[in-house]
Amino acid sequence: MTPGRASRTLGGVTDQRVAVLQEPERITVETRPVPSPGPGEVQVAVRAVSVCGSDVHYYDHGRIGGFVMHGPLVLGHETSGVVSALGEGVDGPVVGTRVAVEPQRNCGRCEQCVRGRYHLCPFIEFFATPPIDGSFAEYVTVPATRAHPVPDALSDDAAAMIEPLAVAVHAAGKADIGPGTRVLVTGGGPVGLLCLQVARARGAAHVTLSDPVARRRDVAREFGADTVVDPGAGDDVPPADVVLECSGVQAAVDAAIAATAPAATVVLVGTGAQVTLPLDLLQAREITVKGTFRYAHVYPAAIALAASGAVRLDDMVTSHHDLDGAVDALLAARRDPESIKAVVRPA
Amino acid sequence: MTPGRASRTLGGVTDQRVAVLQEPERITVETRPVPSPGPGEVQVAVRAVSVCGSDVHYYDHGRIGGFVMHGPLVLGHETSGVVSALGEGVDGPVVGTRVAVEPQRNCGRCEQCVRGRYHLCPFIEFFATPPIDGSFAEYVTVPATRAHPVPDALSDDAAAMIEPLAVAVHAAGKADIGPGTRVLVTGGGPVGLLCLQVARARGAAHVTLSDPVARRRDVAREFGADTVVDPGAGDDVPPADVVLECSGVQAAVDAAIAATAPAATVVLVGTGAQVTLPLDLLQAREITVKGTFRYAHVYPAAIALAASGAVRLDDMVTSHHDLDGAVDALLAARRDPESIKAVVRPA
Amino acid sequence: MTPGRASRTLGGVTDQRVAVLQEPERITVETRPVPSPGPGEVQVAVRAVSVCGSDVHYYDHGRIGGFVMHGPLVLGHETSGVVSALGEGVDGPVVGTRVAVEPQRNCGRCEQCVRGRYHLCPFIEFFATPPIDGSFAEYVTVPATRAHPVPDALSDDAAAMIEPLAVAVHAAGKADIGPGTRVLVTGGGPVGLLCLQVARARGAAHVTLSDPVARRRDVAREFGADTVVDPGAGDDVPPADVVLECSGVQAAVDAAIAATAPAATVVLVGTGAQVTLPLDLLQAREITVKGTFRYAHVYPAAIALAASGAVRLDDMVTSHHDLDGAVDALLAARRDPESIKAVVRPA
Amino acid sequence: MTPGRASRTLGGVTDQRVAVLQEPERITVETRPVPSPGPGEVQVAVRAVSVCGSDVHYYDHGRIGGFVMHGPLVLGHETSGVVSALGEGVDGPVVGTRVAVEPQRNCGRCEQCVRGRYHLCPFIEFFATPPIDGSFAEYVTVPATRAHPVPDALSDDAAAMIEPLAVAVHAAGKADIGPGTRVLVTGGGPVGLLCLQVARARGAAHVTLSDPVARRRDVAREFGADTVVDPGAGDDVPPADVVLECSGVQAAVDAAIAATAPAATVVLVGTGAQVTLPLDLLQAREITVKGTFRYAHVYPAAIALAASGAVRLDDMVTSHHDLDGAVDALLAARRDPESIKAVVRPA
Repeated sequence: MTPGRASRTLGGVTDQRVAVLQEPERITVETRPVPSPGPGEVQVAVRAVSVCGSDVHYYDHGRIGGFVMHGPLVLGHETSGVVSALGEGVDGPVVGTRVAVEPQRNCGRCEQCVRGRYHLCPFIEFFATPPIDGSFAEYVTVPATRAHPVPDALSDDAAAMIEPLAVAVHAAGKADIGPGTRVLVTGGGPVGLLCLQVARARGAAHVTLSDPVARRRDVAREFGADTVVDPGAGDDVPPADVVLECSGVQAAVDAAIAATAPAATVVLVGTGAQVTLPLDLLQAREITVKGTFRYAHVYPAAIALAASGAVRLDDMVTSHHDLDGAVDALLAARRDPESIKAVVRPA
Repeated sequence: MTPGRASRTLGGVTDQRVAVLQEPERITVETRPVPSPGPGEVQVAVRAVSVCGSDVHYYDHGRIGGFVMHGPLVLGHETSGVVSALGEGVDGPVVGTRVAVEPQRNCGRCEQCVRGRYHLCPFIEFFATPPIDGSFAEYVTVPATRAHPVPDALSDDAAAMIEPLAVAVHAAGKADIGPGTRVLVTGGGPVGLLCLQVARARGAAHVTLSDPVARRRDVAREFGADTVVDPGAGDDVPPADVVLECSGVQAAVDAAIAATAPAATVVLVGTGAQVTLPLDLLQAREITVKGTFRYAHVYPAAIALAASGAVRLDDMVTSHHDLDGAVDALLAARRDPESIKAVVRPA
Repeated sequence: MTPGRASRTLGGVTDQRVAVLQEPERITVETRPVPSPGPGEVQVAVRAVSVCGSDVHYYDHGRIGGFVMHGPLVLGHETSGVVSALGEGVDGPVVGTRVAVEPQRNCGRCEQCVRGRYHLCPFIEFFATPPIDGSFAEYVTVPATRAHPVPDALSDDAAAMIEPLAVAVHAAGKADIGPGTRVLVTGGGPVGLLCLQVARARGAAHVTLSDPVARRRDVAREFGADTVVDPGAGDDVPPADVVLECSGVQAAVDAAIAATAPAATVVLVGTGAQVTLPLDLLQAREITVKGTFRYAHVYPAAIALAASGAVRLDDMVTSHHDLDGAVDALLAARRDPESIKAVVRPA
Repeated sequence: MTPGRASRTLGGVTDQRVAVLQEPERITVETRPVPSPGPGEVQVAVRAVSVCGSDVHYYDHGRIGGFVMHGPLVLGHETSGVVSALGEGVDGPVVGTRVAVEPQRNCGRCEQCVRGRYHLCPFIEFFATPPIDGSFAEYVTVPATRAHPVPDALSDDAAAMIEPLAVAVHAAGKADIGPGTRVLVTGGGPVGLLCLQVARARGAAHVTLSDPVARRRDVAREFGADTVVDPGAGDDVPPADVVLECSGVQAAVDAAIAATAPAATVVLVGTGAQVTLPLDLLQAREITVKGTFRYAHVYPAAIALAASGAVRLDDMVTSHHDLDGAVDALLAARRDPESIKAVVRPA
């Protein structure tokens, strides 16, 4: 597809506004050409982008582990919008379809892709991960198969938050959570709250959430935690068959492992550089620890779950911002202890 | 524990009334001694016994497959009550505890027991399965570990129905049902309705229930089916990743297999003598078919699920009967198309 | 790649001889153009094609179930050869590499392909399955990723027989066979003998093979069966944790299910139209039955297994034929009770 | 069974010689009464006890982690012998049966036992783990179900070494090792060599063993390693789908994780206090890490595997000692770099 065709589809719009992280702690809004969808791609007019902790981390530090900014970077990867143009060979979703954008593009040919683990593709391109730009913009392009239609029941904000929900659905799917399972979620940030809700939606018998911040424990109760504990206060942690570790904090991992029942599974969702595990406990209880990386194949599941009402996404949104307010969105969590999810609406 | 001690515990009551199936189609109420709990057992004063299709089958035919009545048999195995006496060496549940009775007693020493599959113990004794008497009685005894405490949130009726719910929880646990899973339940009887609810409670994306009876399809909608189909009317059946076959009817199995998606799992819950499967489809789609026999280890899970409100048990009760009305309870389903679950209250 | 380039690679050869099944029971050898490898493909000079029962079935009946010949068909899919030309964009395996040919071509884009189950791709093209031609020919083309290099340790015959070995590796991989597992293989044809050997190679504790033909039972002993039984003679069948059903015969399935231990797995490898299973036994023992369709991702595993000597392929070859003798190869099993595998060498 | 009956069975023998670790680094041989088998037990006349690193650790330090000697302790838990008397209610194995002794006694009633995980029983009693005595003695008693008959094909030494083989069978069973699997074993001590052999016996495609000691790498080659690497020399480690970590050394764990393929499984067999894992790699590759504790249900599997010749146990024995030489057996590994397994023969 040529830019010309794209601009016709867009009624002559050829330029868009984009919020660009020029360097750590400096975002400016630029005018850039509207991207045309390539073969197999769709162009999406962005409606909502919810802010992730990784966006904030790039804003602060310009890097996350081995992923380092070497030039300007557009942040934002939790994205919803409306299909605005189709690339060559694309039948759908048709122009006008409201979609949740799965922000990754895999090679399709490597061993990992062929085995159905496309999220582990070594050639993956992921929004807002250097050097790939994200969605703090009016328009983005993605493979058509990664633009997932959403029902009317989902708001634009909720459709954007399908992305972190996909993380939780994928992580919870790594453990065998069902009726009778006692779950411990460590960390009451957005992903922890989503893991909590997904555990509930899978029929878990009891869900405990641990977080040192009182406000987060209160919110966790509102989102369905049976028990909340303050790890620093020496609260008793009920025994857990499954731990969903969403903090990336060593002390939380320690407390979580200590609370495991024999034969428990610990899923590592939180990020960090390394983690030290008590080998003697891992052995004596035959604990299984599973790493988890983003997600694959779960967008439709996450959309259905959100549409059913089993997971409440809109209730997690605490502020809205326009593109010029992208910095405010990024800083909301830092400034405001009441903040859970800030949403940027570029249009 | 001696009978004397038991009767003291009971305030001197030594006799009880029991509804006995003397031969097919003939039930009489007899006076029998109250059973004393043996070592490791508890005695339970029965509060509610919900009627199962197998009870009706014994009433009609005096046998189910290889299980044949060779003398009088007390029917009833879906049981709740209150602990009324403890056998030797039993610490709990203490007298007065409201319990759901798991109606089986395994040997504890055979290969199956030692491997954690106590329901497959070749020496299993199960209520109302010849020659083991059931619970259409004022008192029963069971191993203390099979008397599962229930919270106040569960009514006596609901506590009795933990038994069929355990069947559904066990069956659904044989497939990997979670967010994204499309489930087909074949058969809208009580177990089908419970499988439907358990699938919902595990976060299934879509649940279809098929039944040739319109009334049952209506009820299935009330209990949360997204789609209901009449197998005889040629209704389209949505594709299914998991089938919970609860009918035991060949035509339902045929239709269910035809609706499977590739790599689907079919769990056989309904009973019958044999089943003919389309080998070419099983192969071409790599279908997995799993037999399921009662349940093991799932009572606490079922109780938690019911207590959470994710499964509605009381709404399935359509009539109540006293011990003298046991026959009416057995015949309710046959006489009344509106009947779902009849409950006998012996006290 | 143009035909001209292909013929240069081949030293000017542009025509080849091909054995064509014109209609059931009539094969003629024709001259056809040598196929040029398309983009992503390699051309393979065929060295050996071992005969499968499905080839014989097409020869006899012109169809297998829903797969029907509507015109001439080249049989043969168990294939080895030497890479003779590369299509556009192909780096390897380089010309001159000895390869085992995985005879299938999937779409790469459908749900099944993307999930890693490419063998269940609804658009799959498989050698010698109408209307796709097979390898009773001097040259074939396949996707480069389906031409698997083999070490010198494997003869051309053995490299061809990687195909049926892949069936056995895939089927055995559907059950959890390892040290301690008691395995029953029903059917002592080539696939049964390979399943037997793969079960041994996975460390099974005991492998029984059942077949009504005495000669096949003798051969099974030579290939490592601990016990052989004649299903018609009422021989006792040792209990089995895993059954690999390779006969497609109802009586064998019946006997196999009867021999299962509780919680056993039955993998259906043999083909047929339908199979009747004893529902009461499936339930009472909680048997799992798994359909299996060809294979995916297992060629390298099968090659490594054969190269290690854990599976003996050459010992299964009982006759060799040239292209003009393709009919004799197909009829070998029918004429000669000593025959196990006939091999056609087209060159 | 009374002591009197036991001594009759033994032809009047009532005393035995026992090697007792009085305190770290001091073993004396004492005369103690021959133990009588209790109900459900058998008495075994010990034939061979192979020495484990844990025996040496208690000899050196008087403790392993939280397991601390508070009085004299009889070491030795890898045990074979001949049944010499039966306790009450025991039918077999009959007196005179050669057995491998599974050196653990579980409660049979707790949650772990009932679920089939008897090795995780919190009340487990294990030979040579304070305060439970081991088998550096002429006679021991064990539950009859833990005295596993061995065929003539197994020597007394091999029968003793079924114990460490059980560790390896259990550990390898935690990963899905089969044809095609690339395995890395870290640590070339006895358990590492057994894990290597079990991986081979399960049909692994390639097995690499890493150890800093050249002699151990040479031995690993003799026992079937395809590749050996010296972790300190910067040798390239081939990619691994499964790691069996048998060293308990942080550097080995680090190198092993670095060598994992995406979606690999790391089974922790080696012991230690804690282990630090690279969280970023665990996540990016979705690695699964599994703790493993002794074994359950695998003695018959290990015996069958050894009897089949797939695992070579006798070749691992490098010295024999009588009861008075127990100290020499314990110190063999320390004194002699050629030593693999020292065996004490108490009789």
